Amino acid sequence: MTTLLVNATLLPCTPDMPVIEGGFVHVEGERIVAAGAGPAPALDGAEIIDVGGDIVMPGMVNPHCHMAMTLFRGLGEDVDDRLYRYILPLERTFVTPPMVRAGTALAAYEMIQGGVTTVADMYYFETEVARVVHQSGMRGVIGQTIADFDPPDHKNADEGFALMDELFAEFSGHPRITPSLAPHAPYSTDVAVMNRVARWVDDHPGTPVQMHLSETGPEMEWASKNYAMTPVEVTAKAGLLREGLIAAHCMYVNEADIALMAQSGVAVAHNARSNGKAGRGIAPITALRAACIPVGIATDGAMSGNTLDLFAQFGPVTMFQKIAGGSRALMPAMDVIRMATLEGAKVLGMADRIGSLEPGKQADLIRIDLSAARLHPIYDHYSMLVFAAMANDVRDVMVDGQWLMRDREVLTLERKKVLRDALQIASEFKAEMVRLDAQHR
Amino acid sequence: MTTLLVNATLLPCTPDMPVIEGGFVHVEGERIVAAGAGPAPALDGAEIIDVGGDIVMPGMVNPHCHMAMTLFRGLGEDVDDRLYRYILPLERTFVTPPMVRAGTALAAYEMIQGGVTTVADMYYFETEVARVVHQSGMRGVIGQTIADFDPPDHKNADEGFALMDELFAEFSGHPRITPSLAPHAPYSTDVAVMNRVARWVDDHPGTPVQMHLSETGPEMEWASKNYAMTPVEVTAKAGLLREGLIAAHCMYVNEADIALMAQSGVAVAHNARSNGKAGRGIAPITALRAACIPVGIATDGAMSGNTLDLFAQFGPVTMFQKIAGGSRALMPAMDVIRMATLEGAKVLGMADRIGSLEPGKQADLIRIDLSAARLHPIYDHYSMLVFAAMANDVRDVMVDGQWLMRDREVLTLERKKVLRDALQIASEFKAEMVRLDAQHR
Repeated sequence: MTTLLVNATLLPCTPDMPVIEGGFVHVEGERIVAAGAGPAPALDGAEIIDVGGDIVMPGMVNPHCHMAMTLFRGLGEDVDDRLYRYILPLERTFVTPPMVRAGTALAAYEMIQGGVTTVADMYYFETEVARVVHQSGMRGVIGQTIADFDPPDHKNADEGFALMDELFAEFSGHPRITPSLAPHAPYSTDVAVMNRVARWVDDHPGTPVQMHLSETGPEMEWASKNYAMTPVEVTAKAGLLREGLIAAHCMYVNEADIALMAQSGVAVAHNARSNGKAGRGIAPITALRAACIPVGIATDGAMSGNTLDLFAQFGPVTMFQKIAGGSRALMPAMDVIRMATLEGAKVLGMADRIGSLEPGKQADLIRIDLSAARLHPIYDHYSMLVFAAMANDVRDVMVDGQWLMRDREVLTLERKKVLRDALQIASEFKAEMVRLDAQHR
Repeated sequence: MTTLLVNATLLPCTPDMPVIEGGFVHVEGERIVAAGAGPAPALDGAEIIDVGGDIVMPGMVNPHCHMAMTLFRGLGEDVDDRLYRYILPLERTFVTPPMVRAGTALAAYEMIQGGVTTVADMYYFETEVARVVHQSGMRGVIGQTIADFDPPDHKNADEGFALMDELFAEFSGHPRITPSLAPHAPYSTDVAVMNRVARWVDDHPGTPVQMHLSETGPEMEWASKNYAMTPVEVTAKAGLLREGLIAAHCMYVNEADIALMAQSGVAVAHNARSNGKAGRGIAPITALRAACIPVGIATDGAMSGNTLDLFAQFGPVTMFQKIAGGSRALMPAMDVIRMATLEGAKVLGMADRIGSLEPGKQADLIRIDLSAARLHPIYDHYSMLVFAAMANDVRDVMVDGQWLMRDREVLTLERKKVLRDALQIASEFKAEMVRLDAQHR
């Protein structure tokens, strides 16, 4: 299978971030053979697609998500105690393998439509998540959560590790699914479990680990009270602050934390909308990146950030840094797109395989339709992508050389079934919320 | 002409903000006759449109824009000195009636596609702006700028007032165009001109006045140095802090300013994306609204905020207040939609005619298509509109009972001509930028 995309405004997202007019991409099987300025090579039997000047760029990387939580989108919005009032009770009752499949399918559908080709997920029943991501055609780093607050799929750490073993048994070696470990957060797993995860990684080098880190005020107090440390320092003490750790949020890291993180080789998943919506503040992303810590742009779950495309994150990501630093020049648009592509791939330890359009890399790419009036004039393609484009402008999506979407039609998931399954469970949530509200009064 | 929209999820945006399933709207000519829960009345000869459960709500109000500046969208993005390096030199050379017409048409096209039905504009050659807004079918408060920095269309205040007279002569009494005065800002018109505007309004009661106020650091310094006052106090001294003043930005207003503003009956146009992108900080919108000052959600010009739809503003508007106040509960989604509709109409002094779907009001309404997977599940329609919907979800737009857009096709402006005219001028800007960059080196 040979595909040739021609007449592209090519944004390969290689480190120098060029914009190549009249560019082409040559895909053979699952890999990119060539990408650059035209003329395209003459290839017998190739499917030739003239994109008419549309942008072709790498598929985007979402390094922190809870896909199944799409079913909680907007539930209890603006209610300060919604976690305890709604979310945790609903999770205890309703999080089952069918619920996880339904929510994950809806999430995959939305992400494909928004140009996200790789997602890092952590939630419950992650073998089910991996199966749905496999079916969707997306690439995923799929992490089984291990937590000590009696989560829906395990009663203790042993059971959590058993679920993880199941995930690894089914998906190790899969071309698109990378199984991963996901200790929930320092305060919700404690040092012993983090240490056990670290030993597991010692035995299985290169396994990515996902964890919430330095996200909330109570977490900071927990670390201070129990260890007289920051959560980052507790993580280091547990042996888990190491290359391969994808640390989500990092809202409250201080200068010493940042130095320790840089030294340790960890990476950060930044969740601007989720943090902003929670009123938590602005994560010190400019300082983290100045310390050469790779930072990716993440959506968090739809319960927290409401959307799963990166376009909806771009504005908050750059505006928050400009506001925090008091300058229009901070977090320029080009850096935002860098974080959404190659830097995001680096966060997941995959920069050698995805994140840019280069010979030998996996053919994960998207086409952005430039026909909308609201995108024009275009003086700077990065500014246009960050400040004017939206998920709807993504027209085609390819992963590993396979089309997941053409002309906005998702080819790997059945729209009607995805929506029907999701809305069925949402109606059960609504009924339960009525009961919870009655209890609350 | 009778139109009946049936089977709607009706958000009339009346003060109690109900959500009415199975609702209808009955339009006769340019007015709403009835809007409420079904069944709809049987009406002979009516055009009956079954919206299939889609949302029908008031058209949105954008109370601060520089429509023609759409041609500067993304120009010099992230460059700290872009105003002096690019924008002012380009404005001096290129702002002519044809440029203003081209930029305004592109802006109107984008706003209609994003569900904005009423805009307040202030820029140059505003009679041209009013003509294009008239043609577009939108409703507009169109303000001729008066400034003392040698702007493109007048050399002194007398010439500025002459342009204003021209605008009023052509458009006074127009059903959709309200001519307005727009002294640029306190520092750029000074007390004498503001006072002249105030005297003009004394003679023409009810005329809306648009002005940038308390927007920038240098403005604060100017007021302090020259008058030992805040810009709000200088405006009061000039007699212009009064009902009918639409004050744009109000970034740096203090408690005393807010009290003075509330007492004076002024209203505020909040430009979250523009302020955020400039790194200026977060306007005290929660405090302004707590003082019962009406606040509308504005886009500013596309040079500053890049998009002209309100959906792209909703996230910043609510997240900025949540971050500034440290709570998820601040600026709830329902209030955001209130500001985009009835409260925005109040900002423009039009709450008796537009901003909600009620008998006797002008028929300015939009239909929001709910078919996108990313909008679901929907637990709360306001949360969905604020955090998940986007401009592309607007399907139909009506102003004064006339359809401006059906099935996303704008009916009043010719897409090809709008884009061709805009891109022609953008290519001239690009050539001039090369020259300016060469000078800069």
